[in-house]
Amino acid sequence: MAHIDLQNDFPGIRGPMAFRPETAKPLNELAEALLRSENSLSRGERELIAAYVSSLNDCFFCENVHGGLAQHYLECDSSFIDSVQKDYISSNVSAKMKSLLWIASSIQKGGKNVVPEQIEAARIAGATDKEIHDTVLIAAAFCMFNRYVDGLSTWAPADKNYYIERAKQRAEEGYAGYDASK
Amino acid sequence: MAHIDLQNDFPGIRGPMAFRPETAKPLNELAEALLRSENSLSRGERELIAAYVSSLNDCFFCENVHGGLAQHYLECDSSFIDSVQKDYISSNVSAKMKSLLWIASSIQKGGKNVVPEQIEAARIAGATDKEIHDTVLIAAAFCMFNRYVDGLSTWAPADKNYYIERAKQRAEEGYAGYDASK
Repeated sequence: MAHIDLQNDFPGIRGPMAFRPETAKPLNELAEALLRSENSLSRGERELIAAYVSSLNDCFFCENVHGGLAQHYLECDSSFIDSVQKDYISSNVSAKMKSLLWIASSIQKGGKNVVPEQIEAARIAGATDKEIHDTVLIAAAFCMFNRYVDGLSTWAPADKNYYIERAKQRAEEGYAGYDASK
Repeated sequence: MAHIDLQNDFPGIRGPMAFRPETAKPLNELAEALLRSENSLSRGERELIAAYVSSLNDCFFCENVHGGLAQHYLECDSSFIDSVQKDYISSNVSAKMKSLLWIASSIQKGGKNVVPEQIEAARIAGATDKEIHDTVLIAAAFCMFNRYVDGLSTWAPADKNYYIERAKQRAEEGYAGYDASK
Protein backbone atom coordinates (compact mmCIF):
# COMPACT_ATOMS: atom_id res chain seq x y z
CA MET A 1 0.00 0.00 0.00
CA ALA A 2 1.26 3.45 -0.88
CA HIS A 3 2.46 5.67 1.98
CA ILE A 4 -0.23 8.26 1.16
CA ASP A 5 -3.79 7.99 -0.15
CA LEU A 6 -3.28 8.44 -3.90
CA GLN A 7 -7.05 8.22 -4.52
CA ASN A 8 -6.50 5.62 -7.23
CA ASP A 9 -5.17 2.07 -7.65
CA PHE A 10 -2.86 2.59 -10.64
CA PRO A 11 0.51 0.82 -10.31
CA GLY A 12 3.94 2.45 -10.08
CA ILE A 13 4.43 6.05 -11.16
CA ARG A 14 0.89 6.13 -12.60
CA GLY A 15 -0.52 6.40 -9.04
CA PRO A 16 1.24 9.63 -8.00
CA MET A 17 0.98 11.02 -11.55
CA ALA A 18 -2.81 10.71 -11.47
CA PHE A 19 -2.80 12.15 -7.92
CA ARG A 20 -0.81 15.22 -8.97
CA PRO A 21 -1.24 16.00 -12.70
CA GLU A 22 0.44 19.41 -12.32
CA THR A 23 3.80 17.76 -11.71
CA ALA A 24 3.07 14.75 -13.97
CA LYS A 25 2.96 17.03 -17.03
CA PRO A 26 6.59 18.27 -16.95
CA LEU A 27 7.78 14.82 -15.79
CA ASN A 28 6.24 13.23 -18.89
CA GLU A 29 7.52 16.01 -21.15
CA LEU A 30 11.01 15.40 -19.77
CA ALA A 31 10.69 11.67 -20.51
CA GLU A 32 9.47 12.47 -24.04
CA ALA A 33 12.41 14.82 -24.74
CA LEU A 34 14.97 12.43 -23.26
CA LEU A 35 13.74 9.03 -24.36
CA ARG A 36 11.72 9.51 -27.56
CA SER A 37 12.55 12.72 -29.44
CA GLU A 38 14.97 12.79 -32.40
CA ASN A 39 18.41 11.64 -31.24
CA SER A 40 21.52 9.85 -32.51
CA LEU A 41 20.99 7.36 -29.66
CA SER A 42 18.07 5.12 -30.63
CA ARG A 43 14.94 4.92 -28.50
CA GLY A 44 15.95 1.37 -27.59
CA GLU A 45 19.40 2.48 -26.44
CA ARG A 46 17.96 5.29 -24.32
CA GLU A 47 15.34 3.02 -22.73
CA LEU A 48 18.13 0.53 -22.00
CA ILE A 49 20.08 3.20 -20.08
CA ALA A 50 16.89 4.03 -18.15
CA ALA A 51 16.25 0.34 -17.38
CA TYR A 52 19.85 -0.18 -16.31
CA VAL A 53 19.86 2.76 -13.87
CA SER A 54 16.48 1.63 -12.50
CA SER A 55 17.93 -1.84 -11.87
CA LEU A 56 20.86 -0.27 -10.00
CA ASN A 57 18.32 1.63 -7.89
CA ASP A 58 16.39 -1.63 -7.42
CA CYS A 59 13.16 -0.01 -8.66
CA PHE A 60 11.15 -3.01 -9.89
CA PHE A 61 8.43 -0.99 -11.63
CA CYS A 62 10.75 1.32 -13.64
CA GLU A 63 13.25 -1.45 -14.37
CA ASN A 64 10.51 -3.52 -15.98
CA VAL A 65 8.59 -0.73 -17.72
CA HIS A 66 11.74 0.58 -19.39
CA GLY A 67 13.28 -2.88 -19.84
CA GLY A 68 10.06 -3.85 -21.64
CA LEU A 69 10.27 -0.74 -23.84
CA ALA A 70 13.97 -1.36 -24.62
CA GLN A 71 13.08 -4.95 -25.58
CA HIS A 72 10.27 -3.69 -27.83
CA TYR A 73 12.40 -1.10 -29.64
CA LEU A 74 15.52 -3.28 -29.91
CA GLU A 75 13.44 -6.27 -31.04
CA CYS A 76 15.37 -8.56 -28.73
CA ASP A 77 14.26 -11.03 -26.09
CA SER A 78 14.20 -10.40 -22.35
CA SER A 79 17.40 -12.39 -21.76
CA PHE A 80 19.32 -9.66 -23.64
CA ILE A 81 17.93 -6.93 -21.35
CA ASP A 82 18.70 -9.11 -18.32
CA SER A 83 22.29 -9.64 -19.54
CA VAL A 84 22.86 -5.86 -19.73
CA GLN A 85 21.38 -5.24 -16.29
CA LYS A 86 23.42 -8.10 -14.81
CA ASP A 87 26.81 -7.37 -16.43
CA TYR A 88 26.83 -4.91 -19.33
CA ILE A 89 30.59 -5.36 -19.87
CA SER A 90 30.15 -8.99 -21.01
CA SER A 91 26.84 -8.27 -22.79
CA ASN A 92 26.33 -7.85 -26.53
CA VAL A 93 25.85 -4.05 -26.55
CA SER A 94 28.21 -1.83 -28.57
CA ALA A 95 31.43 -0.39 -27.13
CA LYS A 96 29.79 3.06 -27.24
CA MET A 97 26.83 1.81 -25.20
CA LYS A 98 29.18 0.13 -22.71
CA SER A 99 31.03 3.42 -22.22
CA LEU A 100 27.72 5.27 -21.72
CA LEU A 101 26.41 2.65 -19.28
CA TRP A 102 29.67 3.07 -17.34
CA ILE A 103 28.97 6.82 -17.02
CA ALA A 104 25.33 6.08 -16.08
CA SER A 105 26.48 3.71 -13.32
CA SER A 106 28.61 6.48 -11.80
CA ILE A 107 25.77 9.01 -11.99
CA GLN A 108 23.59 6.55 -10.08
CA LYS A 109 26.08 6.68 -7.17
CA GLY A 110 26.31 10.48 -7.31
CA GLY A 111 27.29 13.19 -9.81
CA LYS A 112 30.84 13.57 -8.53
CA ASN A 113 31.65 9.93 -9.30
CA VAL A 114 32.10 10.64 -13.01
CA VAL A 115 35.83 10.97 -13.78
CA PRO A 116 37.42 12.45 -16.96
CA GLU A 117 38.66 8.99 -18.01
CA GLN A 118 35.05 7.83 -18.44
CA ILE A 119 34.33 10.77 -20.77
CA GLU A 120 37.53 10.00 -22.70
CA ALA A 121 36.52 6.33 -23.01
CA ALA A 122 33.10 7.38 -24.35
CA ARG A 123 34.72 9.70 -26.91
CA ILE A 124 37.11 6.93 -28.01
CA ALA A 125 34.09 4.65 -28.48
CA GLY A 126 32.52 7.31 -30.72
CA ALA A 127 30.10 9.09 -28.37
CA THR A 128 29.34 12.76 -29.07
CA ASP A 129 29.05 15.49 -26.43
CA LYS A 130 25.29 15.50 -26.89
CA GLU A 131 25.13 11.73 -26.35
CA ILE A 132 27.23 12.05 -23.18
CA HIS A 133 25.01 14.92 -21.99
CA ASP A 134 21.84 12.92 -22.62
CA THR A 135 23.24 9.83 -20.89
CA VAL A 136 24.05 11.91 -17.80
CA LEU A 137 20.57 13.44 -17.76
CA ILE A 138 18.75 10.14 -18.43
CA ALA A 139 20.68 8.51 -15.56
CA ALA A 140 20.03 11.50 -13.28
CA ALA A 141 16.33 11.60 -14.24
CA PHE A 142 15.89 7.94 -13.33
CA CYS A 143 17.49 8.61 -9.95
CA MET A 144 14.47 10.93 -9.58
CA PHE A 145 11.77 8.71 -11.11
CA ASN A 146 12.94 5.65 -9.11
CA ARG A 147 12.89 7.63 -5.84
CA TYR A 148 9.45 9.01 -6.67
CA VAL A 149 8.03 5.52 -7.30
CA ASP A 150 9.63 3.78 -4.30
CA GLY A 151 9.67 6.77 -1.93
CA LEU A 152 5.87 6.74 -1.97
CA SER A 153 5.83 2.93 -1.72
CA THR A 154 3.69 2.44 -4.83
CA TRP A 155 2.73 -1.11 -5.83
CA ALA A 156 3.93 -2.88 -8.97
CA PRO A 157 2.55 -5.91 -10.85
CA ALA A 158 4.85 -8.86 -10.03
CA ASP A 159 4.42 -10.60 -13.40
CA LYS A 160 7.16 -9.40 -15.77
CA ASN A 161 5.00 -10.24 -18.78
CA TYR A 162 2.65 -7.41 -17.77
CA TYR A 163 5.36 -4.89 -18.69
CA ILE A 164 6.39 -6.63 -21.90
CA GLU A 165 2.77 -6.80 -23.06
CA ARG A 166 2.17 -3.10 -22.34
CA ALA A 167 5.37 -1.92 -24.04
CA LYS A 168 3.93 -1.81 -27.57
CA GLN A 169 1.05 0.44 -26.51
CA ARG A 170 3.38 2.65 -24.46
CA ALA A 171 5.73 2.96 -27.43
CA GLU A 172 2.88 4.01 -29.72
CA GLU A 173 1.42 6.57 -27.31
CA GLY A 174 4.65 8.10 -26.05
CA TYR A 175 5.09 10.05 -22.83
CA ALA A 176 3.88 13.55 -23.72
CA GLY A 177 0.20 13.94 -22.98
CA TYR A 178 0.32 10.64 -21.10
CA ASP A 179 -2.90 9.71 -19.32
CA ALA A 180 -1.87 7.88 -16.14
CA SER A 181 -5.29 6.25 -15.86
CA LYS A 182 -4.84 4.19 -19.07
CA MET B 1 36.09 22.73 -16.71
CA ALA B 2 32.97 20.83 -17.71
CA HIS B 3 33.38 17.25 -18.94
CA ILE B 4 31.90 18.18 -22.34
CA ASP B 5 32.06 21.35 -24.46
CA LEU B 6 28.88 23.14 -23.42
CA GLN B 7 29.57 25.98 -25.90
CA ASN B 8 29.02 28.56 -23.17
CA ASP B 9 30.55 29.71 -19.87
CA PHE B 10 27.40 29.88 -17.72
CA PRO B 11 27.82 28.44 -14.23
CA GLY B 12 26.08 25.38 -12.78
CA ILE B 13 22.92 24.07 -14.40
CA ARG B 14 22.75 27.11 -16.69
CA GLY B 15 25.59 25.64 -18.80
CA PRO B 16 23.89 22.35 -19.79
CA MET B 17 20.47 24.07 -19.93
CA ALA B 18 21.75 26.51 -22.57
CA PHE B 19 23.48 23.60 -24.37
CA ARG B 20 20.27 21.55 -24.54
CA PRO B 21 17.16 23.79 -24.39
CA GLU B 22 14.87 20.88 -25.38
CA THR B 23 15.44 19.21 -22.02
CA ALA B 24 15.83 22.50 -20.10
CA LYS B 25 12.18 23.40 -20.84
CA PRO B 26 10.50 20.51 -18.94
CA LEU B 27 13.17 20.70 -16.21
CA ASN B 28 12.28 24.35 -15.57
CA GLU B 29 8.56 23.65 -15.78
CA LEU B 30 9.01 20.91 -13.17
CA ALA B 31 10.86 23.35 -10.89
CA GLU B 32 8.09 25.92 -11.40
CA ALA B 33 5.32 23.43 -10.52
CA LEU B 34 7.21 22.05 -7.51
CA LEU B 35 8.82 25.13 -6.00
CA ARG B 36 6.71 28.12 -7.00
CA SER B 37 3.12 27.28 -7.91
CA GLU B 38 0.24 27.59 -5.41
CA ASN B 39 0.88 25.29 -2.45
CA SER B 40 0.21 25.01 1.29
CA LEU B 41 3.99 24.74 1.72
CA SER B 42 5.44 28.22 1.23
CA ARG B 43 7.99 28.93 -1.49
CA GLY B 44 10.59 29.42 1.22
CA GLU B 45 9.82 26.04 2.80
CA ARG B 46 10.03 24.26 -0.56
CA GLU B 47 13.31 25.98 -1.50
CA LEU B 48 14.65 24.99 1.94
CA ILE B 49 13.88 21.30 1.22
CA ALA B 50 15.66 21.69 -2.15
CA ALA B 51 18.68 23.35 -0.51
CA TYR B 52 18.83 20.70 2.21
CA VAL B 53 18.80 17.77 -0.24
CA SER B 54 21.42 19.56 -2.37
CA SER B 55 23.64 19.92 0.71
CA LEU B 56 23.27 16.18 1.42
CA ASN B 57 24.33 15.53 -2.20
CA ASP B 58 27.21 17.99 -1.70
CA CYS B 59 26.16 19.98 -4.78
CA PHE B 60 27.65 23.44 -4.08
CA PHE B 61 25.85 25.24 -6.92
CA CYS B 62 22.31 23.96 -6.13
CA GLU B 63 22.82 24.19 -2.37
CA ASN B 64 23.64 27.87 -2.68
CA VAL B 65 21.14 28.82 -5.41
CA HIS B 66 18.25 27.28 -3.47
CA GLY B 67 19.64 28.25 -0.07
CA GLY B 68 19.78 31.84 -1.38
CA LEU B 69 16.18 31.61 -2.60
CA ALA B 70 15.00 30.10 0.71
CA GLN B 71 16.75 32.95 2.55
CA HIS B 72 15.06 35.49 0.26
CA TYR B 73 11.55 34.07 0.67
CA LEU B 74 11.87 33.35 4.40
CA GLU B 75 13.43 36.78 5.03
CA CYS B 76 16.03 35.22 7.29
CA ASP B 77 19.82 35.44 7.35
CA SER B 78 22.20 32.84 5.96
CA SER B 79 22.99 31.43 9.42
CA PHE B 80 19.41 30.12 9.61
CA ILE B 81 19.79 28.26 6.29
CA ASP B 82 23.16 26.93 7.46
CA SER B 83 21.63 25.72 10.74
CA VAL B 84 18.99 23.68 8.86
CA GLN B 85 21.55 22.15 6.50
CA LYS B 86 23.86 21.32 9.42
CA ASP B 87 21.31 19.90 11.86
CA TYR B 88 17.63 20.52 11.10
CA ILE B 89 16.50 18.76 14.29
CA SER B 90 18.00 21.47 16.51
CA SER B 91 17.14 24.29 14.08
CA ASN B 92 14.28 26.74 14.35
CA VAL B 93 12.03 25.23 11.67
CA SER B 94 8.54 23.98 12.53
CA ALA B 95 7.85 20.41 13.64
CA LYS B 96 6.07 19.85 10.30
CA MET B 97 9.14 20.99 8.37
CA LYS B 98 11.38 18.77 10.53
CA SER B 99 9.23 15.76 9.71
CA LEU B 100 9.34 16.62 5.98
CA LEU B 101 13.12 17.16 6.04
CA TRP B 102 13.41 13.72 7.68
CA ILE B 103 11.52 12.18 4.75
CA ALA B 104 13.66 14.18 2.29
CA SER B 105 16.85 12.88 3.92
CA SER B 106 15.68 9.29 3.37
CA ILE B 107 14.73 9.97 -0.27
CA GLN B 108 18.26 11.29 -0.83
CA LYS B 109 19.66 7.89 0.19
CA GLY B 110 17.12 6.01 -1.99
CA GLY B 111 13.34 5.68 -2.31
CA LYS B 112 13.11 2.50 -0.25
CA ASN B 113 14.57 4.21 2.81
CA VAL B 114 11.28 5.92 3.65
CA VAL B 115 9.50 3.94 6.38
CA PRO B 116 5.81 4.22 7.45
CA GLU B 117 6.84 5.75 10.79
CA GLN B 118 8.20 8.81 8.97
CA ILE B 119 4.87 9.31 7.19
CA GLU B 120 3.06 8.91 10.54
CA ALA B 121 5.37 11.48 12.15
CA ALA B 122 4.65 13.93 9.32
CA ARG B 123 0.89 13.43 9.71
CA ILE B 124 1.15 13.95 13.48
CA ALA B 125 3.01 17.20 12.80
CA GLY B 126 0.14 18.30 10.55
CA ALA B 127 1.42 17.49 7.04
CA THR B 128 -1.16 16.65 4.36
CA ASP B 129 -0.81 13.87 1.78
CA LYS B 130 -0.13 16.48 -0.90
CA GLU B 131 2.63 18.04 1.22
CA ILE B 132 4.21 14.61 1.76
CA HIS B 133 3.91 13.88 -1.98
CA ASP B 134 5.53 17.18 -2.91
CA THR B 135 8.33 16.71 -0.38
CA VAL B 136 9.12 13.27 -1.87
CA LEU B 137 9.14 14.68 -5.40
CA ILE B 138 11.17 17.79 -4.51
CA ALA B 139 13.78 15.59 -2.80
CA ALA B 140 13.79 13.15 -5.73
CA ALA B 141 14.02 15.98 -8.28
CA PHE B 142 17.07 17.43 -6.53
CA CYS B 143 18.72 14.01 -6.64
CA MET B 144 18.38 14.53 -10.42
CA PHE B 145 19.35 18.23 -10.63
CA ASN B 146 22.39 17.69 -8.37
CA ARG B 147 23.60 14.74 -10.47
CA TYR B 148 23.06 16.74 -13.68
CA VAL B 149 25.13 19.67 -12.38
CA ASP B 150 27.99 17.63 -10.87
CA GLY B 151 27.89 14.71 -13.31
CA LEU B 152 28.89 17.11 -16.09
CA SER B 153 31.44 18.79 -13.80
CA THR B 154 30.03 22.29 -14.29
CA TRP B 155 31.72 25.21 -12.53
CA ALA B 156 30.19 27.26 -9.72
CA PRO B 157 31.04 30.73 -8.37
CA ALA B 158 32.86 30.20 -5.05
CA ASP B 159 31.54 33.39 -3.41
CA LYS B 160 28.33 32.60 -1.54
CA ASN B 161 27.21 36.22 -1.85
CA TYR B 162 26.84 35.70 -5.61
CA TYR B 163 23.87 33.41 -4.94
CA ILE B 164 22.30 35.59 -2.27
CA GLU B 165 22.52 38.64 -4.54
CA ARG B 166 20.93 36.82 -7.48
CA ALA B 167 18.08 35.32 -5.43
CA LYS B 168 15.79 38.37 -5.65
CA GLN B 169 15.96 38.41 -9.46
CA ARG B 170 15.48 34.64 -9.66
CA ALA B 171 12.47 34.89 -7.34
CA GLU B 172 10.90 37.59 -9.52
CA GLU B 173 11.48 35.77 -12.81
CA GLY B 174 10.61 32.23 -11.72
CA TYR B 175 11.66 29.03 -13.43
CA ALA B 176 9.16 28.65 -16.29
CA GLY B 177 10.46 30.29 -19.43
CA TYR B 178 13.83 30.62 -17.75
CA ASP B 179 16.59 31.95 -19.99
CA ALA B 180 19.79 30.19 -18.90
CA SER B 181 21.92 32.92 -20.47
CA LYS B 182 20.68 35.60 -18.03
